[in-house]
Amino acid sequence: MGDHRSYPLIARAGKDGYENNLQSRTFSVGSAVFGADLPTIIAGPCAVESREQTLGIAKAVKEAGADCLRGGAFKPRTSPYSFQGLGREGLEILAEARAETGLPVVTEVMDVRLVELVCEVADMLQIGSRNMQNFPLLIEVGKAGKPVLLKRGMSATIDEWLCAAEYIALSGTAEILLVERGVRCSVSRGYTRNTLDLNVIVPTREETVLPVLADPSHSTGRADLVPWVSRAAIGAGAQGLIIEVIGEDMRPEDVRCDGAQSIKPSVLREIIDTVKTPVPGTAV
Amino acid sequence: MGDHRSYPLIARAGKDGYENNLQSRTFSVGSAVFGADLPTIIAGPCAVESREQTLGIAKAVKEAGADCLRGGAFKPRTSPYSFQGLGREGLEILAEARAETGLPVVTEVMDVRLVELVCEVADMLQIGSRNMQNFPLLIEVGKAGKPVLLKRGMSATIDEWLCAAEYIALSGTAEILLVERGVRCSVSRGYTRNTLDLNVIVPTREETVLPVLADPSHSTGRADLVPWVSRAAIGAGAQGLIIEVIGEDMRPEDVRCDGAQSIKPSVLREIIDTVKTPVPGTAV
Amino acid sequence: MGDHRSYPLIARAGKDGYENNLQSRTFSVGSAVFGADLPTIIAGPCAVESREQTLGIAKAVKEAGADCLRGGAFKPRTSPYSFQGLGREGLEILAEARAETGLPVVTEVMDVRLVELVCEVADMLQIGSRNMQNFPLLIEVGKAGKPVLLKRGMSATIDEWLCAAEYIALSGTAEILLVERGVRCSVSRGYTRNTLDLNVIVPTREETVLPVLADPSHSTGRADLVPWVSRAAIGAGAQGLIIEVIGEDMRPEDVRCDGAQSIKPSVLREIIDTVKTPVPGTAV
Amino acid sequence: MGDHRSYPLIARAGKDGYENNLQSRTFSVGSAVFGADLPTIIAGPCAVESREQTLGIAKAVKEAGADCLRGGAFKPRTSPYSFQGLGREGLEILAEARAETGLPVVTEVMDVRLVELVCEVADMLQIGSRNMQNFPLLIEVGKAGKPVLLKRGMSATIDEWLCAAEYIALSGTAEILLVERGVRCSVSRGYTRNTLDLNVIVPTREETVLPVLADPSHSTGRADLVPWVSRAAIGAGAQGLIIEVIGEDMRPEDVRCDGAQSIKPSVLREIIDTVKTPVPGTAV
Repeated sequence: MGDHRSYPLIARAGKDGYENNLQSRTFSVGSAVFGADLPTIIAGPCAVESREQTLGIAKAVKEAGADCLRGGAFKPRTSPYSFQGLGREGLEILAEARAETGLPVVTEVMDVRLVELVCEVADMLQIGSRNMQNFPLLIEVGKAGKPVLLKRGMSATIDEWLCAAEYIALSGTAEILLVERGVRCSVSRGYTRNTLDLNVIVPTREETVLPVLADPSHSTGRADLVPWVSRAAIGAGAQGLIIEVIGEDMRPEDVRCDGAQSIKPSVLREIIDTVKTPVPGTAV
Repeated sequence: MGDHRSYPLIARAGKDGYENNLQSRTFSVGSAVFGADLPTIIAGPCAVESREQTLGIAKAVKEAGADCLRGGAFKPRTSPYSFQGLGREGLEILAEARAETGLPVVTEVMDVRLVELVCEVADMLQIGSRNMQNFPLLIEVGKAGKPVLLKRGMSATIDEWLCAAEYIALSGTAEILLVERGVRCSVSRGYTRNTLDLNVIVPTREETVLPVLADPSHSTGRADLVPWVSRAAIGAGAQGLIIEVIGEDMRPEDVRCDGAQSIKPSVLREIIDTVKTPVPGTAV
Repeated sequence: MGDHRSYPLIARAGKDGYENNLQSRTFSVGSAVFGADLPTIIAGPCAVESREQTLGIAKAVKEAGADCLRGGAFKPRTSPYSFQGLGREGLEILAEARAETGLPVVTEVMDVRLVELVCEVADMLQIGSRNMQNFPLLIEVGKAGKPVLLKRGMSATIDEWLCAAEYIALSGTAEILLVERGVRCSVSRGYTRNTLDLNVIVPTREETVLPVLADPSHSTGRADLVPWVSRAAIGAGAQGLIIEVIGEDMRPEDVRCDGAQSIKPSVLREIIDTVKTPVPGTAV
Repeated sequence: MGDHRSYPLIARAGKDGYENNLQSRTFSVGSAVFGADLPTIIAGPCAVESREQTLGIAKAVKEAGADCLRGGAFKPRTSPYSFQGLGREGLEILAEARAETGLPVVTEVMDVRLVELVCEVADMLQIGSRNMQNFPLLIEVGKAGKPVLLKRGMSATIDEWLCAAEYIALSGTAEILLVERGVRCSVSRGYTRNTLDLNVIVPTREETVLPVLADPSHSTGRADLVPWVSRAAIGAGAQGLIIEVIGEDMRPEDVRCDGAQSIKPSVLREIIDTVKTPVPGTAV
């Protein structure tokens, strides 16, 4: 399929000890471990909207069993008139949430000029779908020395995705997490935001030693589908999940970003309980 | 989403006792029950190629725990120069396989003029993807009085799929099984035959009282992915699987149709053991 | 690209005198010639809805310069509750329209059992998109001895399309017309019914000696776009057009099928005047 | 379709004098005029590879009748191991080409930190497909005061494309050119790099007062298709073309980037002669 010579630093072929199965190069982000036997769960609000909202959700996802906190301080939005995130103030709130919960923080960076600033707080830098082929940004986060979460582009092939990861690796970072987040496909018209492509998980793990996770929130756009699709993703070989969460007593319309696809902490707990229980026959 | 008035006979809305959850209208095909609590497994060769091959696989899938036998006597093939199935002889072999194993038989019918003939053997009639909108055929199988397995078209929306099922229902058959079998999407280029759309399962069950299954063989085109994707499909809410199987000692290149995506009976047994074990948190 | 051995009867390679350019195997349907230098125009109502409507439109498209009359007597409809065509009565109306205008008639056949009946009137048999891989139907129309218009399936590759044509050729008919009618693609969401794929025209002509036309009506779903897309199709190498037309004084909502994409005869005349005027540089 | 309130600065609705037809807001880039009656042609090498190559092609496209010179100094490449462009040296070569030919220069900028540098030479800044939603870059080029060429993303809807243009407009630049360059669609497998979406041209012009061009090079990936698709694009309402060109005596394999889709100057001249000749019936 792929051409291993296109991404030698992350290809499975030629990596000593990784040739013969789906074992991944594991790495830690704070207390969270990626690529090991049990799935790793990243959860949190879509956007950091306020101190109260973020601290509340951070504590709730910690109690539900999440390993890592997500939350956007800088938000890529289709329209320039939509809420663009709290920026620097959002980062400070994330730092406080980490201090209170002990959860490592992953947050998106969209601008090469802000990589240094975001690194002051982030334990892992997120590259969003729209920036999967923003090459100067890939190079800059690669130089920053922090682990990187790289979402798949909306219509990217495995090859393009792994070449994007190679840009990061070539710039100095070996610790990269790949996240499938749904692709554009004509058939989802009318029922989900995107089409979750679970066929991609194992073929990607066969090509690369990097761990591969799935994002049930963006791939569906519907909170009610998140538990179903979370179980499906783990069954398909995903090594973890990244899930958007709102407060237990909040309504979707109360939040400024992606309310319709955010689940409550009680639902998150059920998902984590299910997917962290080893199932007979699912071992590699 | 959908417009329930377009498919009143199969819509969840308005069906007494089915409004409030994902419960399906259950039905039996021989000893197999569809739409109940545990997933139902249909397995067998892609095509009936010989008496020995078919009886051997039939016994093996029975022992592995399958509920229903599949096998094509009439095969829709992209090229007129490909093997087109054994036809009438294939039906006789299927009848013998049923007699030997007790498994009910599902087999495809492509031609309105052959519905009567196929009904002499089939316990359930299969409509393939390419015929999802072959309306005269839908009407004819609807009149035949046998349960029908209706595969989703390669780029069909939920609405189109359910309208196709409504044609069958309107012609007289209430017992219809829907099967997601992968869709055409640009992103799978280079790694799988199609893109399995697991986002579709629960939204389809919300719209209709018909049971919904998944086909991990055609949706991937790769035997090695079938176990992963089978677990994923059940996690996503599929109420069963239809899987292509080759003999335990056969090689993919030994068969005339879809060898690359057919699994061995020992792998089938592992899949069935896994998906028939209720997992905490997966109940509806 | 394609594998010529898959469709030897229609492949350009190996066809004496056709190897080195885009020249097509020409053929006549009544007074209409397909595959020659000037584009051939097929026009008429989506469905035959009444004698008055059909005769009126037939005369109008004749006056506008069309070469062939289209009109559906048997209509494939997504919902079983939509108007399904006038059937046999529709055929009789088409025969009368031919008698009055002299235009040859192309009309769709969906059912193998009706090929003989449709042949009593049709000068050319149409296979619709949904039936591109209805193999028994392809074989039956191939045997009927009439020219065949084969629409491309909604997500068919060139290979699948040409293999479908080969089924027809292998059954006895060499006179086949290929029609690109728009494909399913995620990006058209919100503005057109399908995505017209004009990249396909010349590569298809390179593979086969069959003439290739385009359908600006179904590919857009919008009457206002039909003139633009008609010019585009001819520029891209299409050897003709098939266009849906309503009466000059009718409104889209007055018709039972595809009103929104049907143009008026006066617009058809402008299109024909434009595309039948040779443009410098467009010769092959 | 679209929601005009999402992009008020560029929407047709509410723009005095533009409401009722497809007339565009015209603007000049050096001697080139965009959005007026005749199509505007941008042509040049994919990448600036050397002084000789670029000056040679620049003179040739000038003689062929092109209005504007394209050429990449900074190249977005899927793989980090591919040629990434000559950078600053490439810009100097482009400046020299402009001095020799009088053609205004459009060249891509990928990095917010290089907008100022690229502006020293560029008469128009190009945003590539991969950066259509690189919002910090859109804002920075919007502030730079130069006209901007904005390519459509590989699977972008009209709404997303126009929202991206609105980011630029909101940052200070009213002179924006939209370029359709082919989308990702499953059906092109095996024959073209992308699927040119000509259905998008007029609906986009209906939504916005910005001029809309097409890119026949990237949308096909094949030099032999460029003349066909160029005519098609103009017929479909495109207000110009952007075309990749190699030297008259060069072979595709002699260039480091996109050789297979680059045409020779003599072919460019034929295209320009054809599309700049007004055709009866093509006026708006």
